[in-house]
Amino acid sequence: MRILVVNVNTTAAITHTIAEQARSVAAPGTEIVGLTPRFGAESVEGNFESYMAAIGVMDAVMAYDQPFDAVIQAGYGEHGREGLQELLNVPVVDITEAAASVAMLLGHAYSVVTTLDRTVPLIEDRLRLAGLYQRCASVRASGLAVLELEQDPSRAVAAIVAQAEQAVRDDKAEVICLGCGGMAGLDAMIRESTGVPVVDGVTAAVALAESLVRLGLSTSKVRTYATPRSKRVAGWPLG
Amino acid sequence: MRILVVNVNTTAAITHTIAEQARSVAAPGTEIVGLTPRFGAESVEGNFESYMAAIGVMDAVMAYDQPFDAVIQAGYGEHGREGLQELLNVPVVDITEAAASVAMLLGHAYSVVTTLDRTVPLIEDRLRLAGLYQRCASVRASGLAVLELEQDPSRAVAAIVAQAEQAVRDDKAEVICLGCGGMAGLDAMIRESTGVPVVDGVTAAVALAESLVRLGLSTSKVRTYATPRSKRVAGWPLG
Amino acid sequence: MRILVVNVNTTAAITHTIAEQARSVAAPGTEIVGLTPRFGAESVEGNFESYMAAIGVMDAVMAYDQPFDAVIQAGYGEHGREGLQELLNVPVVDITEAAASVAMLLGHAYSVVTTLDRTVPLIEDRLRLAGLYQRCASVRASGLAVLELEQDPSRAVAAIVAQAEQAVRDDKAEVICLGCGGMAGLDAMIRESTGVPVVDGVTAAVALAESLVRLGLSTSKVRTYATPRSKRVAGWPLG
Amino acid sequence: MRILVVNVNTTAAITHTIAEQARSVAAPGTEIVGLTPRFGAESVEGNFESYMAAIGVMDAVMAYDQPFDAVIQAGYGEHGREGLQELLNVPVVDITEAAASVAMLLGHAYSVVTTLDRTVPLIEDRLRLAGLYQRCASVRASGLAVLELEQDPSRAVAAIVAQAEQAVRDDKAEVICLGCGGMAGLDAMIRESTGVPVVDGVTAAVALAESLVRLGLSTSKVRTYATPRSKRVAGWPLG
Amino acid sequence: MRILVVNVNTTAAITHTIAEQARSVAAPGTEIVGLTPRFGAESVEGNFESYMAAIGVMDAVMAYDQPFDAVIQAGYGEHGREGLQELLNVPVVDITEAAASVAMLLGHAYSVVTTLDRTVPLIEDRLRLAGLYQRCASVRASGLAVLELEQDPSRAVAAIVAQAEQAVRDDKAEVICLGCGGMAGLDAMIRESTGVPVVDGVTAAVALAESLVRLGLSTSKVRTYATPRSKRVAGWPLG
Amino acid sequence: MRILVVNVNTTAAITHTIAEQARSVAAPGTEIVGLTPRFGAESVEGNFESYMAAIGVMDAVMAYDQPFDAVIQAGYGEHGREGLQELLNVPVVDITEAAASVAMLLGHAYSVVTTLDRTVPLIEDRLRLAGLYQRCASVRASGLAVLELEQDPSRAVAAIVAQAEQAVRDDKAEVICLGCGGMAGLDAMIRESTGVPVVDGVTAAVALAESLVRLGLSTSKVRTYATPRSKRVAGWPLG
Repeated sequence: MRILVVNVNTTAAITHTIAEQARSVAAPGTEIVGLTPRFGAESVEGNFESYMAAIGVMDAVMAYDQPFDAVIQAGYGEHGREGLQELLNVPVVDITEAAASVAMLLGHAYSVVTTLDRTVPLIEDRLRLAGLYQRCASVRASGLAVLELEQDPSRAVAAIVAQAEQAVRDDKAEVICLGCGGMAGLDAMIRESTGVPVVDGVTAAVALAESLVRLGLSTSKVRTYATPRSKRVAGWPLG
Repeated sequence: MRILVVNVNTTAAITHTIAEQARSVAAPGTEIVGLTPRFGAESVEGNFESYMAAIGVMDAVMAYDQPFDAVIQAGYGEHGREGLQELLNVPVVDITEAAASVAMLLGHAYSVVTTLDRTVPLIEDRLRLAGLYQRCASVRASGLAVLELEQDPSRAVAAIVAQAEQAVRDDKAEVICLGCGGMAGLDAMIRESTGVPVVDGVTAAVALAESLVRLGLSTSKVRTYATPRSKRVAGWPLG
Repeated sequence: MRILVVNVNTTAAITHTIAEQARSVAAPGTEIVGLTPRFGAESVEGNFESYMAAIGVMDAVMAYDQPFDAVIQAGYGEHGREGLQELLNVPVVDITEAAASVAMLLGHAYSVVTTLDRTVPLIEDRLRLAGLYQRCASVRASGLAVLELEQDPSRAVAAIVAQAEQAVRDDKAEVICLGCGGMAGLDAMIRESTGVPVVDGVTAAVALAESLVRLGLSTSKVRTYATPRSKRVAGWPLG
Repeated sequence: MRILVVNVNTTAAITHTIAEQARSVAAPGTEIVGLTPRFGAESVEGNFESYMAAIGVMDAVMAYDQPFDAVIQAGYGEHGREGLQELLNVPVVDITEAAASVAMLLGHAYSVVTTLDRTVPLIEDRLRLAGLYQRCASVRASGLAVLELEQDPSRAVAAIVAQAEQAVRDDKAEVICLGCGGMAGLDAMIRESTGVPVVDGVTAAVALAESLVRLGLSTSKVRTYATPRSKRVAGWPLG
Repeated sequence: MRILVVNVNTTAAITHTIAEQARSVAAPGTEIVGLTPRFGAESVEGNFESYMAAIGVMDAVMAYDQPFDAVIQAGYGEHGREGLQELLNVPVVDITEAAASVAMLLGHAYSVVTTLDRTVPLIEDRLRLAGLYQRCASVRASGLAVLELEQDPSRAVAAIVAQAEQAVRDDKAEVICLGCGGMAGLDAMIRESTGVPVVDGVTAAVALAESLVRLGLSTSKVRTYATPRSKRVAGWPLG
Repeated sequence: MRILVVNVNTTAAITHTIAEQARSVAAPGTEIVGLTPRFGAESVEGNFESYMAAIGVMDAVMAYDQPFDAVIQAGYGEHGREGLQELLNVPVVDITEAAASVAMLLGHAYSVVTTLDRTVPLIEDRLRLAGLYQRCASVRASGLAVLELEQDPSRAVAAIVAQAEQAVRDDKAEVICLGCGGMAGLDAMIRESTGVPVVDGVTAAVALAESLVRLGLSTSKVRTYATPRSKRVAGWPLG
């Protein structure tokens, strides 16, 4: 089985980290292919960039010329999953939704800990639309940008762990979803400091995508995610 | 005051119709400028096309080199308004939300009548996110595509009026929002046949945009719609 | 165009302030007529007084013997707008709902800052019924009564600004609605101190009322707001 | 114990019927006093009349010069209960809410059957505000006015029974609340024809009011229903 | 009239206290019979124990061989009421729901104060399912276990009163529901310290159960609570 | 990896069918162990039986004396999952929730098709509590009992397919969840007749349970699902 794991930003180093994370849980026989968009921002922290990510991800997937069995959109709180579902016949899994789905199997309420405060409403809105918000205790921000996570991991870790602790103590979260990719060991640290399970969106998405493929299930094409009607499209495909 | 009215598809004829509709209610002294995206589909009827519209509209606005006072995104149920709000300091009004806001001043419940059934969930989701869904009695589709409206107006009118009548009779709508642009006289016909007020999104948006400008109000920049942080963006601006 | 701006209390000085505020944004050609009820309390801060205001406002409007094009009910969180809509064929705009509608065009969440804590549930309930509550971050009270606002403006301003700051910082409001009339310059002070747009209900209502008139729209009469059936009514009209 | 049962309209015959209904279930030792407002409409079927009822009921209660232990507001879906709660220190029970509270003890979902379609949104809104709407399967109207119930009981019964049957069969109601007073035997007929329990608001309210008195409980005065502050009120008390 | 008041745990001393509490408000002529389950835990503080309580209570009621008119399930936030409603033709009242129903007649919002934090989600979930959660300001825990209440009443009282005070001050509760049985005088102390009405679930349930019997109402048997179909059941009735 | 798949009724033949279904999708290396409760009803179709199932399932799992890695509760809409989560340290997956979680990855809205109408509210309530109800288009019943499914498969199939077709056409479901176990080939038939993906709860639960084990995740023990406190329990363990 081949699963495309598509980064939402144009930073190849992050694609690499995400793909490695995906591989760490992939079943034997699952090949993980990391894709980096050629269109969009080096990190995604807001609606303008997130809308570009939607296009960048669709473009990266359509430009991939080998067969594949499922696609994971690996950005937290981003736009675009619905478009991919229209374009493809294989299952599409968004990591925000994957993490929440899995967290809801583990505890009565979950919180998300993410990077910048400005992305909190985006994540809340995506969870709300997905119908996965009712048991969300809170979405909390560490105040550090995506790229800062890479540059100063120890400070990032401390800030994120602090928010996770508050989520468990004040918001009564029983599970933490990690709303930022690419930090080896972060989940272990939060688990240790809070005592609650920590769900990483990328690994959760790999497990769910593999599950759908094994169950022979894919996106329903009868209404919302029907294949786009044939029409003239200017500027597409990109490049 | 200059207001940009941005079509979401690449069909210039529709831009023309929309701009004319806007002009029909604009205050003296308001200049309406119609913009057509150079990126995207000839009509927008689904998520893939709608995400392209988001980018196409932002690109069209950023490429416009004259000063302006407000922007109207003239597509029903489309993505993208949040991105424009980040990029601009002037008010941005989406016609889906404008129509619902105005309808809620006129009756206890409103319905939207739109084109294809596949766009119904997109409209519902946009209204849900906007916090304007509670008093929505229904979103109904006539079953006719955007471009068919232009080609066979009389058949389109009959199908839309029939849905509006059902919305009033069966769903208890007290106001109808027209979820499809560009049909002169359609609102008069529905009003006559149902006896309820009919709200057209484009004209409602013009009135709201002018109102915001006159009140000296624009998008809040403290959190969700803060200006994007400066970073490397591949492929942007388009073209 | 003539718009009646009806105060909800019997204090003529407040009617004067409100009408002046309305005039400050009215379009050229719009005449603002301030009306003071002859029935009800000198200030409205609770349900008993608010129900009297409902009757007082309807009476004041019905007693007005000149033609008019729209009515604004200028009380925050008060009962009565639905009754006016039944009695009249011209549009009716409530300032609580006007402010919320406009605020939702400007930011992801808004807060209301009002006078006494006891009026908070009334405001919340009116917003809930109006279907405008989902994006309300909070309704906060300064703890000062309506008439104290007039008597000690500087203390009132400080208390209100403090609540607005908390709404932005703690409740994540991106827009502030001013839930108390009649304080020149208050909105400028809050804007400066919080950095977010401030919406005044009276001016927002003027813009919306003018918009409805210009769009040729008025209350739907098919169901909830149908004209009252003819029947014997004791004690009405008042006086 | 003395309980005031206050009609919402000015028709004394209906007050008589309601009071008799109340007496039929009152405990030994409970005196039922029926009050008829001197202000308002001969029947209440909409917001204008309902707002007058709010004032009329408060006036009737304040004009009553004997001691009493509880008040029942005997109108379905009417405004005003909150005002009474501010003015009084004894418990206040609204029949719409009483019926819904009791119905929720008897089945998974309940429906209300009422008179005119135009009153349906009022009832829904009152239940929504009261926090009793979640398990409401539907509010259905027989299409007959309040006074027609009195004039042609057999036709009224047939129309109401038909709606109750539809509520059980189509809306999956397991309990019916009778949203119109004064028809002896109507509940028995509906119970027989649908097989579900039928709750009459007046008798339910008597039982609840007696319960509160016996439990030594009354309205909380700390916030929403605090006693009105002392101030000048024009035109009050009425007459 | 005979009402069974069924304890949810196997501690007879608590049954005794609960039954005495019930008797303190029962009408003359009402006989209160306290039942103690023979199956289950000595105190119920979580789902495992609560599910056993559901079975234990049903068993205790079915094993009771005298006629009775109503059943009260006297545990806060426990499972099982729906099963009893299927098995019986007389009304069943759960004290969690009884307290909330009554509280909603007294104030705009209520809070529940209970024992251990781990039971808070159970109570919230039961209120949510019952459709009584909208006006719940908070469910707060004193941190003391059920049996500790019996052992060190003065410490328990202090902890519970402290939470009630916070509920009123911080969560804006206007009524307190006592989510833990058996403490004479506790309600008086909370009322004194907070100034708000205090609702005890057991006494509220007695009043509601008596009310239903007097009104001739019982559980609807048409759908959710229909009598179980006849079938082989292993291990039932218990021992 | 060993997964216990626990039937909720005492009919061993159904346990056999369920276990076979589970094995059909289990990964190589996953051992499926089917357990049949020794307490409870031969089929579960209502709350009384469902509460017995809760106890029967917990008993069956606690009586199992070999190590295991996850538990699946294989009843649609049944009580009990929360109790198991308290008692165990390995993950617990309920098939109702598993099916809904997976369905939400495949379409905008899903419907459940189940057996008897009386079980519909149980399923709706379990989905509501689980926070998975927002995107549920409907829960529909075929009108056939669990054991009839086994006895007359072809009639059962026709009734279930008919409901699935209505769910897609009238309720706008894009995915069907099969709310009844044990019918080989039923999902293929529904898929063919409706054109939408069909999710079987048992196989979905196997995939999710395996996923949780592989991801090293299990139930959070900090609050709701903390291990029960040590106390005296009468009649437990059963037998």
